[in-house]
Amino acid sequence: MEKVKIDPTTQAYRLLNPGVVLLISVGDGVKDNLYPVTWNMPLKKEPGMIAILSGKGHFSYPLIAKTGEFGANVPGADLVDAVYGCGSTSGYVIKDKFSRFGLTREKAEFIYAPLVKEAVAHMECRVCQVVDLGNTALLMAIIMKATVDPRHFRDSQWIFDNGLELLHHVGGTRFAVSKHAVTAKEVLNWNE
Amino acid sequence: MEKVKIDPTTQAYRLLNPGVVLLISVGDGVKDNLYPVTWNMPLKKEPGMIAILSGKGHFSYPLIAKTGEFGANVPGADLVDAVYGCGSTSGYVIKDKFSRFGLTREKAEFIYAPLVKEAVAHMECRVCQVVDLGNTALLMAIIMKATVDPRHFRDSQWIFDNGLELLHHVGGTRFAVSKHAVTAKEVLNWNE
Repeated sequence: MEKVKIDPTTQAYRLLNPGVVLLISVGDGVKDNLYPVTWNMPLKKEPGMIAILSGKGHFSYPLIAKTGEFGANVPGADLVDAVYGCGSTSGYVIKDKFSRFGLTREKAEFIYAPLVKEAVAHMECRVCQVVDLGNTALLMAIIMKATVDPRHFRDSQWIFDNGLELLHHVGGTRFAVSKHAVTAKEVLNWNE
Repeated sequence: MEKVKIDPTTQAYRLLNPGVVLLISVGDGVKDNLYPVTWNMPLKKEPGMIAILSGKGHFSYPLIAKTGEFGANVPGADLVDAVYGCGSTSGYVIKDKFSRFGLTREKAEFIYAPLVKEAVAHMECRVCQVVDLGNTALLMAIIMKATVDPRHFRDSQWIFDNGLELLHHVGGTRFAVSKHAVTAKEVLNWNE
């Protein structure tokens, strides 16, 4: 399904709200790589920002340092083997993770890194601040463009009516799946 | 069910991995407050660290600034109304959110803030670094103690065999629920 653009400022953080694992794509136009990031969060609405933790020793880090860019792709549960596979292998060994794990490159608009066509949503991100944490770094990035499969996102929120299954990392090979939502009771009288 | 201690360094981040909404408790021994935080993530394993985003204009911020502490409680889906309620009301108006939303204070070991007894897990956290983001701040904190309901956590991972339902914020009053896990296929041959 063709993705549709959503507002990076008012809507993109909603893609991240449920705490999904992300499949991060990096590239400089010559080489590229994919790796999953469990440790991520929305950071700001205006401008729309995301934070991801990244290991400095990994294959992808120099590519992010060189370009200042990454793609953040939201995988559905159907991609669980590819997500885990991308995280349990290294770009130093597997030169083409897209083909190794059955994924398709899609050209991005603002970044060199390709996006993962099979994902249900994408964010094109530019790093604007780095918090050094020793072996790792917290990358804070502006979301320049966000797109989503319109079957699964309406009124600025994920919807589960059309079979959406979101992936949340538990640990090791295990991922929790969310495929429905509950609605909390509104608080009508603050002083009751 | 009595909670059991888990290792703050090797295990506590696993409580946060699935991207759950947290019910943050703050207090200075005189007053206290509760508010949910959707925007959170694990930050480091050694020492175990957590990052949460906090609005500077909210009632709780001066309490965190004063004590340097907060409790991070993981609510099950049964607490969805309390979680939303704590987030849609202000501590400036509701002086006792615990009683207003049917929650029970439990004394913490290392922090003044009480914990939420009805939650399935707790982390006692001490802020060690603050990243200023204008109206908000990213609070980075060391997890000094972590406890969890042993029915729902085994071998350093959440388990769903005993009815655990985790809450992930979607937007507004809507929360996604995860109540089962899938297992990804191991990558046995990196070069295949």
